[in-house]
Amino acid sequence: MHGGSPDIHVILMTCPPDQAEKILLALLERRLVGCGNIIPLVRSRYWWEGQICSDDEALVVMETTPDRLDALYAAIPEVHPYTVPKVVALQPSACGEPYLQWLRAVTRPG
Amino acid sequence: MHGGSPDIHVILMTCPPDQAEKILLALLERRLVGCGNIIPLVRSRYWWEGQICSDDEALVVMETTPDRLDALYAAIPEVHPYTVPKVVALQPSACGEPYLQWLRAVTRPG
Amino acid sequence: MHGGSPDIHVILMTCPPDQAEKILLALLERRLVGCGNIIPLVRSRYWWEGQICSDDEALVVMETTPDRLDALYAAIPEVHPYTVPKVVALQPSACGEPYLQWLRAVTRPG
Repeated sequence: MHGGSPDIHVILMTCPPDQAEKILLALLERRLVGCGNIIPLVRSRYWWEGQICSDDEALVVMETTPDRLDALYAAIPEVHPYTVPKVVALQPSACGEPYLQWLRAVTRPG
Repeated sequence: MHGGSPDIHVILMTCPPDQAEKILLALLERRLVGCGNIIPLVRSRYWWEGQICSDDEALVVMETTPDRLDALYAAIPEVHPYTVPKVVALQPSACGEPYLQWLRAVTRPG
Repeated sequence: MHGGSPDIHVILMTCPPDQAEKILLALLERRLVGCGNIIPLVRSRYWWEGQICSDDEALVVMETTPDRLDALYAAIPEVHPYTVPKVVALQPSACGEPYLQWLRAVTRPG
């Protein structure tokens, strides 16, 4: 079955395509996320310094638990090359119970 | 226009790339989702049995209504090969009204 | 650090692959979104007029602020070819503060 508002956050992050694996691995090794799905090539367009710019990026979808969210945000500047990285957390309304249990177990520090 | 907290859930699911169509079709045929977008190839890294593993997966983004959510979660073990599948539901803050009406109509059982 | 429920919406939109750039550019130029990531090719399956149809689409992940959401939804029919487009807004539970400040600045009208 699934919870009402489960203890999980879905994290959306963009980064240079050739750094996605390295960033995700660093976050996994620190138990800050339980898993990540790298969408290897997205076409990004965005406002920057008064112009619409465009870049190839990777979009990474990760999951973590609420107790690891602060530590995740604190670690981003150490592992991500951007000064203004997109790291957005979404709180699900439901999630499979086995998945939640697994996520709690694998994101426990130490 | 669009509602405050509309009657819709966005579902994120990962699965083996070669089973995404079959799983999505099974859920559509049972009217458990109204549509699905298959991102055919994502690179997944995750903790499993004490190690960081990696796999190619598909990421499927689907939509359903609140009254079909329980039935959707109940059906997952019948159509998904994993013992611990990622099936996460996100509740939007807004959605186009025509889309909502369409989704209600196509997810009505029977 | 990051806010509790920050002033940002993540927008999920699907559209024909060859129109994703044009639609995203139109929304950026009107300052209705701050950025967008185009996932160029997804396989969509959906109910339409009593049948399960399938199409190649693009999935675009965009961000905007709450004060621009109504204007965004009002503009969709002018820039999107579908009669029933998927334009779903998700409200994050957290987001990097520098990103939030940037988003507010670049989505200010005029």
